[in-house]
Amino acid sequence: MAYSAKIGPSILSSDLSCLGSECVRMMECGADYLHLDVMDGHFVPNITFGHPMVECLRKAIGQDPFFDMHMMVSRPEQWVKPMAAAGANQYTFHLEATTNPGNLIKEIKESSMKVNSSSRACQISVGLAIKPGTTVSWLRSQFPSLDIEVDGGVGPDTIHKCAEAGANMIVSGSAVVGSDDPRSVISLLRTVVAEAIQKRSLDR
Amino acid sequence: MAYSAKIGPSILSSDLSCLGSECVRMMECGADYLHLDVMDGHFVPNITFGHPMVECLRKAIGQDPFFDMHMMVSRPEQWVKPMAAAGANQYTFHLEATTNPGNLIKEIKESSMKVNSSSRACQISVGLAIKPGTTVSWLRSQFPSLDIEVDGGVGPDTIHKCAEAGANMIVSGSAVVGSDDPRSVISLLRTVVAEAIQKRSLDR
Repeated sequence: MAYSAKIGPSILSSDLSCLGSECVRMMECGADYLHLDVMDGHFVPNITFGHPMVECLRKAIGQDPFFDMHMMVSRPEQWVKPMAAAGANQYTFHLEATTNPGNLIKEIKESSMKVNSSSRACQISVGLAIKPGTTVSWLRSQFPSLDIEVDGGVGPDTIHKCAEAGANMIVSGSAVVGSDDPRSVISLLRTVVAEAIQKRSLDR
Repeated sequence: MAYSAKIGPSILSSDLSCLGSECVRMMECGADYLHLDVMDGHFVPNITFGHPMVECLRKAIGQDPFFDMHMMVSRPEQWVKPMAAAGANQYTFHLEATTNPGNLIKEIKESSMKVNSSSRACQISVGLAIKPGTTVSWLRSQFPSLDIEVDGGVGPDTIHKCAEAGANMIVSGSAVVGSDDPRSVISLLRTVVAEAIQKRSLDR
């Protein structure tokens, strides 16, 4: 399956006192998914929110929005089941936070969940995150159909470099959430990425 | 200064997707303060929220509500300044989480903050929390004017025991927040505690 351009606002940049309505606002502005930063104050020096928030958000805004959980936590193994039960769609853990990534990937894949009252089972996607300092070989050429996400400081000024480097899932915080016109920013980001994808496709 | 009966709803029991309006609702129902549970997934097996949430709540609901931060975290020293800056009024740390409680108390007392645009400095109160398993000698007789708070499973069925034992600050989660009539529950809890305080005063 070919990958496509997807824009995921990082809702940590929004008003946390009304996170449900902020999520709805982002989806109405054309977001393809929502990126949720979970921080435990140990893996990174901040505490944001955990699965109780995800559970409340899922109840408040329904089953449709795709929740990409960016688990900036130590011991990511322990939150797979609670996050699955709370309504996560993707569990993105840090390579630096576990000694056994293979086993964790297996656990995530096995953690199916009931996503609505009709008990439709839903598999959680696996995301593998790396910190800026972690060495990574050039990905897009090795994995032509992989979803590759960038996160951190992405906006209209930086999107071209991300798109040309092969990223197709774009996390954007303040550039989208803090904008007066999130819809236009999301649309612009998606257009730049889609054009880069098309260019790569023609070049092959 | 004599202590008085104060009821603080535990907002973790409310809808986290709209925490600002939940806080306002509790204050309008007569809450004396708000009890906010910060959990880091290390000291206790749950992640709730941290100072970014407190900052958003303070901005959303103004300077008046008193925020009692229940820091169920390891290394509580590291959040004193961020919580002060975010708008906390009381920093309640766990005796079990630190090796130097005296120093931490000093740090909390020294962490004054600007609480509004007129730059009025506000001292943060110190709260000392103990887990159920930690031994504590009988407190009210030793400290006749101390604020003593109970937290966990307190509601109309258990308030009499808490009040008779000498507690005056009452944290209540689901019994208040989940009630159809939080105003009546808060009023009932406060009346029971106030009567116990008055009885102790007459007995002396």
